Amino acid sequence: MRLSDGVEWGVHVCTLLATLPADGALPAAKLAEFHDVPAAYLAKHLQALARAGVLQTAKGPRGGYRLSRPPAEITILDVVEAIDGDEPAFRCTEIRRRGPTAMPARYYPHPCGIHAAFDRADEVWRAELGATTIADLVVGVVRDASRPALEKGVRWLGEAVRS
Amino acid sequence: MRLSDGVEWGVHVCTLLATLPADGALPAAKLAEFHDVPAAYLAKHLQALARAGVLQTAKGPRGGYRLSRPPAEITILDVVEAIDGDEPAFRCTEIRRRGPTAMPARYYPHPCGIHAAFDRADEVWRAELGATTIADLVVGVVRDASRPALEKGVRWLGEAVRS
Repeated sequence: MRLSDGVEWGVHVCTLLATLPADGALPAAKLAEFHDVPAAYLAKHLQALARAGVLQTAKGPRGGYRLSRPPAEITILDVVEAIDGDEPAFRCTEIRRRGPTAMPARYYPHPCGIHAAFDRADEVWRAELGATTIADLVVGVVRDASRPALEKGVRWLGEAVRS
Repeated sequence: MRLSDGVEWGVHVCTLLATLPADGALPAAKLAEFHDVPAAYLAKHLQALARAGVLQTAKGPRGGYRLSRPPAEITILDVVEAIDGDEPAFRCTEIRRRGPTAMPARYYPHPCGIHAAFDRADEVWRAELGATTIADLVVGVVRDASRPALEKGVRWLGEAVRS
């Protein structure tokens, strides 16, 4: 069971975009450069984030991607579901209704207990990821990053949005 | 993100094996027949469960697989980890240390907040799956199954362990 690489990239991208000045935007190429990830592959994930309403595109010479709403209103779960979908990790194929002891579906009025247990795990996983916002992540970066790393990031970002 | 089909099969197999009489065992072919799943593919998962110490094999004419410990001491998580491994769904590639703002590793004394958030989600997911035992699942089946379905299962199982 594994989340796609795009999930890691997507959360980092949103965290970076949350630090832009108002009306700032960054093109896909700059986002790929900052994170040192393959531009074409990142573009695919950026489009998925835009389709899901997490990012929006700004046209014009200083256009690019920006967050579509305040970072406190975007959770890690929003990014995960935009990129990897919202299907639960466990897919029940109702194997209890197969084989030599199978009965017609009406003989199984209750949901399978195994399916229900995985659904509960899926819920707590999503609740936990839904409890952390992009704003929380920015606070963490600013608090935890070493000053030289932060300075370097701020300088790069200032040049990137002006260019 | 998806768990393998073998996880569903493995939990069903353990639930079935928990209902065997003491010293009973079922060969892989019978377990595949009961669940109507491909025998060769199920065999691979049964071997993984045995390697992980969830199942053990009994030799002899009535040999086969059985649980290696009481069903109240085997959790759904044990089966998941035996079959799909215990790697977290999110793999951090430390992309914060890449690109034009990268600094030597010593400049990142704190774990990445994004990585930490996914670790918390992974923990609650595993805790939830670790809270349901095979014994709980048997209780659920006996409580929720329709009587005719239960009868059919008990009859099949009686013949399967005698043969």
